[in-house]
Amino acid sequence: MNTHTGLSAEAAVMELLDDWAAAVRAKDIDAITAHYAAEIVAFDAIAQLQFKGREAYRQHWEACLAQCPGAMTFELHEEIIYAEGNLAFCHALVRCGGNEADAGWLRMSAGLRRIEGHWKLVHEHHSAPFDPQNGRALFDLAP
Amino acid sequence: MNTHTGLSAEAAVMELLDDWAAAVRAKDIDAITAHYAAEIVAFDAIAQLQFKGREAYRQHWEACLAQCPGAMTFELHEEIIYAEGNLAFCHALVRCGGNEADAGWLRMSAGLRRIEGHWKLVHEHHSAPFDPQNGRALFDLAP
Repeated sequence: MNTHTGLSAEAAVMELLDDWAAAVRAKDIDAITAHYAAEIVAFDAIAQLQFKGREAYRQHWEACLAQCPGAMTFELHEEIIYAEGNLAFCHALVRCGGNEADAGWLRMSAGLRRIEGHWKLVHEHHSAPFDPQNGRALFDLAP
Repeated sequence: MNTHTGLSAEAAVMELLDDWAAAVRAKDIDAITAHYAAEIVAFDAIAQLQFKGREAYRQHWEACLAQCPGAMTFELHEEIIYAEGNLAFCHALVRCGGNEADAGWLRMSAGLRRIEGHWKLVHEHHSAPFDPQNGRALFDLAP
């Protein structure tokens, strides 16, 4: 992990991201969405351009988790966190899959605000790049 | 445009993003990369997981622009900017295409730092979502 200005805020954000990733692995929808601000705007890797608001994004998470029958792989790598005052953003690579055998790599960016003392995600962006020649998502690229 | 805390920083970031988007439309590689910090880590919509550093990302931009023979469409929509002190991030939808007829929608997230008085992009993330059933990028979704 690489960190920048404002060490204590960055440590708090790193802890939040670790908790959130653990909630994804546990498929605990309440624990996942507890980290989201009500106004979150999310760009997920699949299905729609955007999800506006915590409730819309929660419903999408529920649908995604229902498609993962096995032990969920969801690991953050190469995290870089920037934080100052009550604002932070981060980016990472995510090893992700419904089970270990089919796990691939995604990219993640996130924006956070400290609201009434608690860091909350106000933005998430997950994606795979695609091949412009054939329009196919490149899910098997490795860092 | 929706803005949050720290109005003047947000106005400066909005101006930078407008200048940067105009540089993309003009296919002016020097003007595009002038907005990037040396340490930028970029997740582009196509080809690779990530590009580390301004020079690697510049080379990718040059390859992309060479594939756009017509008048470039590149418009930011639904921008939301968060800024505090010397840190900012934003997200937007991007109408993008090598010409008007084939323009589609991407999502963009960006992180910025004010370095020696100048706002610079330290992170960009562009993507299209994909269809998990067939693995194809969904480039024709509209907001």
